[in-house]
Amino acid sequence: MIRNTLKELLYAKKYKEIHDMLVAYNPVDLAELLMELDDSELAAIFRMIDKEKAAEVFSYMEDDQRQTLLKGFTSQEISYILDTMYTDDAVDFLEDMPANVVTKLLEHVSGETRADINRLLKYPEDSAGSIMTVEYVELSPEMTVGQALAKIRRVGIESETVYTCYVVERKKLVGIVTAKSLMTNAETVQIADLMQDNFISVRTTDDQEDAAKLFRKYGLIAIPVLDHEERLVGIVTFDDAIGVLTDETTEDMHKMAAMTANEDSYLKTGVFRHARNRIGWLLFLMFSATITGTIITRYEAAIAAVPLLVSFIPMLTDTGGNCGSQSSTLVIRGLAVDELHFKDLFTVVWKEFRVSLVVGTVLAAANGIRIYVMQRDLGLAAVIGISLIGTIIVAKMVGCMLPIFAKQLRLDPAIMAAPLITTIVDTCSIIIFFKIATMVFHL
Amino acid sequence: MIRNTLKELLYAKKYKEIHDMLVAYNPVDLAELLMELDDSELAAIFRMIDKEKAAEVFSYMEDDQRQTLLKGFTSQEISYILDTMYTDDAVDFLEDMPANVVTKLLEHVSGETRADINRLLKYPEDSAGSIMTVEYVELSPEMTVGQALAKIRRVGIESETVYTCYVVERKKLVGIVTAKSLMTNAETVQIADLMQDNFISVRTTDDQEDAAKLFRKYGLIAIPVLDHEERLVGIVTFDDAIGVLTDETTEDMHKMAAMTANEDSYLKTGVFRHARNRIGWLLFLMFSATITGTIITRYEAAIAAVPLLVSFIPMLTDTGGNCGSQSSTLVIRGLAVDELHFKDLFTVVWKEFRVSLVVGTVLAAANGIRIYVMQRDLGLAAVIGISLIGTIIVAKMVGCMLPIFAKQLRLDPAIMAAPLITTIVDTCSIIIFFKIATMVFHL
Repeated sequence: MIRNTLKELLYAKKYKEIHDMLVAYNPVDLAELLMELDDSELAAIFRMIDKEKAAEVFSYMEDDQRQTLLKGFTSQEISYILDTMYTDDAVDFLEDMPANVVTKLLEHVSGETRADINRLLKYPEDSAGSIMTVEYVELSPEMTVGQALAKIRRVGIESETVYTCYVVERKKLVGIVTAKSLMTNAETVQIADLMQDNFISVRTTDDQEDAAKLFRKYGLIAIPVLDHEERLVGIVTFDDAIGVLTDETTEDMHKMAAMTANEDSYLKTGVFRHARNRIGWLLFLMFSATITGTIITRYEAAIAAVPLLVSFIPMLTDTGGNCGSQSSTLVIRGLAVDELHFKDLFTVVWKEFRVSLVVGTVLAAANGIRIYVMQRDLGLAAVIGISLIGTIIVAKMVGCMLPIFAKQLRLDPAIMAAPLITTIVDTCSIIIFFKIATMVFHL
Repeated sequence: MIRNTLKELLYAKKYKEIHDMLVAYNPVDLAELLMELDDSELAAIFRMIDKEKAAEVFSYMEDDQRQTLLKGFTSQEISYILDTMYTDDAVDFLEDMPANVVTKLLEHVSGETRADINRLLKYPEDSAGSIMTVEYVELSPEMTVGQALAKIRRVGIESETVYTCYVVERKKLVGIVTAKSLMTNAETVQIADLMQDNFISVRTTDDQEDAAKLFRKYGLIAIPVLDHEERLVGIVTFDDAIGVLTDETTEDMHKMAAMTANEDSYLKTGVFRHARNRIGWLLFLMFSATITGTIITRYEAAIAAVPLLVSFIPMLTDTGGNCGSQSSTLVIRGLAVDELHFKDLFTVVWKEFRVSLVVGTVLAAANGIRIYVMQRDLGLAAVIGISLIGTIIVAKMVGCMLPIFAKQLRLDPAIMAAPLITTIVDTCSIIIFFKIATMVFHL
């Protein structure tokens, strides 16, 4: 609707009206609105956004649209956008571009910005250094609150966050001061007396997920990032942390469903890329599942004698798979949010064992009764009941232990999820089932 | 280690040393440290924490420990803690207590705190109202920056966040002012000229998850909460939003693994509670899986003629289940992070259809070749190959559509995950397999 209004106004050359419409929009919403426009309209509308806001809108746009815009931009426009964007947003954007384009784009920006961007581009992907920004307020311990406030007034407008200021002495971070304490203390108080010297920080090379978890744990707005010599080189802000936590969880979920994690959105990913992300695990699991098939062929005689046995296979393997994936999901998520650790292994195993006894008994009783009522065959009811209990115990044991061991071996626990557990548990449940059946029926 | 040091110091009555040790700790870490202490040590150590910090530490502690502490507290101690805690933390804590205990505890607090707490306790669980806090800085449009800063100095120290101030006229929220603009503008500027009247807000009755998603989308520090008459009644802060997002994701994951979501941590949940959370879905899925079993019995003659057929059942059903859960996971997560919507239904279905053709062809070829090489049976290779492609197409179609339909029907898409999809796809794949097998082998 708004999109159509914009198109009409553009066609009617009512530029003033368009500008006034755009002013009312939040940059995030504006980026969303621009996404719906055609390439030709995009550039025209984008140029009607106020300059400073345009740089912010640009940082929220999708890669392909930004590339469209860049093609039509003058070097002045490129340099203004890149100089005005926060360094971390600019780096985010440049990381996804071909190296020759990056070099060309950087020719247009100021020397300082270029140096900052080049430095950040060097940090390994997924490191705290790669998501940090270099815009922050630096104070020194000898300053007074009044001087600090004056400095914020002077430089603060360019800093992504001014709510935590960093006290630096000989390049080393010695303390932090919150804007709250600056605002609530007298102008004459010295920074050295106000600052907290007991602060949380991360290293440039730390994993971005570990950094993000600190925000969740301590409720922080920003975390200072130090190099290997304790020098302050940047900060990570909470909005980036929320993004990292969301992305890492999505990645975990994809891995838990036997897929290679993919940073691009579902709709932006092509069919062949989607297929490639999924085929590897499917092939591996498919061939693993043939083991279960091979085991079944060993019991051909039993099947020939009691053909009904086959009909219980899906129920048994599905239930085993479901029980295993319940346990593995609980443990994988517990490990991811730092609620569970390797030291809890025995507690978890003991708890899952007891849970599987309760669950197994209930399911076995329910199914046993059903079979006895429908088939009037106590032997069969017993075989299914006992097999169910055995399968459920094995499933829950495997499901809870594998992710914990994976973590200890520095593998991603998320791969020890439903698909792999199901395949392993399938084999076990088939063996348990036929062993018990051949025993009870003397086959 | 630190725990042992604390115990020794306590035994040696070196209270001064303990106090000095505790000072160096962050409240979050202190709460973690206290968790490792026995009940008898807990109260003694807790009393050695500085008063104001103690209230914060209390808000990070676990429920059972807080109850232990409460038993030994004097009414003065209880009232101090509850009055000093942020209202939302106090409400969080009281929500988990029996009603009679809450009434008794509230007798000790100031009238104002009691009124605030009682009001927040009335909001429905999982609503924005239930996670908001009433501590915020309220300004009026006629104030100048200087007056605003003076007000922050006066009341700000008690406010959970002073970084966004709320401009209120006749109880209605008319604009917001960031601390950044207060700090970077002249003292004489009027608030009315500085404030943004275009702000994001939520209603008390809005879902807490929807409120939390706004933080992620717009990178906000706080969101004002309005009642149905547009009056400002509280704010939600980003740290609570991160907590909500994490909890809602955990809930989604649990549902996706066929469990009733549980707010308590894994270790704090008892065996019977764990079992209860899992049995319902397991029973439902187990009985659903017997349908697949019943279908197999219809093909007893075919199995008797070609016993080898049975051995391919686990491979087929597992692959179908895995393919389905890949698609459903992608869609469920896409819906959760607002990347996918109902309007994308046809795009998703068309993409999944093409992906399933690619994936199906690769898997069918791989397995067909394996079977031909090992069994020298072209017919069997063809049956398995075609069944695989059919199963994979059905699995991916079911997997991608059900979560989208569930969302449209206002059901939780997360229940349309691997376990349910697997059960549905199992039935389909068995039917496809035996239909093709009986056709090719003329059974």
